[in-house]
Amino acid sequence: MLKLHHLRVGRSVFTIWLLEELGAAYEMDFYDRNEAGRAPPELKKAHPLGKSPVIEDDGFVLAESGAIALYLLDKFDSENKLGPPTDDIKAKAEWMQWLMYSEASAFAPMLIKLLLSRTDPKPPVFDGFAAGEVALQLGYLEDRLEGREFVMGDRFSVPDIGATYIAQMAQRLGEIEPYPNLQAYLARNMARPAWQRAMEKTGG
Amino acid sequence: MLKLHHLRVGRSVFTIWLLEELGAAYEMDFYDRNEAGRAPPELKKAHPLGKSPVIEDDGFVLAESGAIALYLLDKFDSENKLGPPTDDIKAKAEWMQWLMYSEASAFAPMLIKLLLSRTDPKPPVFDGFAAGEVALQLGYLEDRLEGREFVMGDRFSVPDIGATYIAQMAQRLGEIEPYPNLQAYLARNMARPAWQRAMEKTGG
Repeated sequence: MLKLHHLRVGRSVFTIWLLEELGAAYEMDFYDRNEAGRAPPELKKAHPLGKSPVIEDDGFVLAESGAIALYLLDKFDSENKLGPPTDDIKAKAEWMQWLMYSEASAFAPMLIKLLLSRTDPKPPVFDGFAAGEVALQLGYLEDRLEGREFVMGDRFSVPDIGATYIAQMAQRLGEIEPYPNLQAYLARNMARPAWQRAMEKTGG
Repeated sequence: MLKLHHLRVGRSVFTIWLLEELGAAYEMDFYDRNEAGRAPPELKKAHPLGKSPVIEDDGFVLAESGAIALYLLDKFDSENKLGPPTDDIKAKAEWMQWLMYSEASAFAPMLIKLLLSRTDPKPPVFDGFAAGEVALQLGYLEDRLEGREFVMGDRFSVPDIGATYIAQMAQRLGEIEPYPNLQAYLARNMARPAWQRAMEKTGG
């Protein structure tokens, strides 16, 4: 059975959410962060980077949230309910852009903001960078969600997993308030039965 | 004709490199950074994030290096010389993992290292994070390149574009010296005719 190495609290609950959306069968190994908030060394036995999510499928080990998501689609979404358009390379590319966006462009500024929350006074180079970039990225998502229920339109799909992760980070960092579309989007996705099941299975 | 919005100096030269590897026809718009090293506001006319690379293809605008790379494969690599395996979902997933790795896991620590190079004294929260994470990521790439000419084995493919970007950042930040495989890999890729053409067309 497919196994997820799940580190509490962090990114991998979003992979569990996707597994639940797909109705996939899976099992979990649980890991807890140490006092400094870092992953425990045991995770390095699953994958050399020692991060989570990591999946194992019959000896095959895979890291990177975006790549894991695409693999889970290949494996569990034979009707392509949550995957990219397949008949138009431009529509497919736009879907891939939004899949990668949350892992790439949007993530680094949020990480810097998270590290800033742990230091005082705020170093100006990082504070200035984060102030501009976080507003840019969250404003971009806010605009994208204007008139759209989900990132790709009126249907939930895999790019919503990463975008919800960014929205949740924004909320936890106290940055979501100026973005009503993003707030409503986060609440909408967290009301989904699959998200609720992910919360129940992991303890939140 | 496909147009690339190219910001000097930065990530988008790696998209030009891929276009050259593919033998694609394209044109470029050039942008220069301002005194603070940031992209000029004109780039926001191409894409709301105002970053580069951005491509435009017959009115279709696409951002995110990884998504652009996959689109260029769909458009220009009909023989699948540089793309993912298509007959095995695990092999394809591993390829996607390495494509996304350079955009996601590897990038944020390198960005923080870059910002650290612009401030003195180094704020401990960021310095400590970067010290551990940069060594972890570059060591992971170093190990991957042990006995492999390219990230996916003995054949150059698209994940090498992003990995070379990370290697070049490591070199520019003075971090590459402990990693002989990575140094050799960077030199090997920068000796490729397509990279040389990208340098000539952009002025390096």
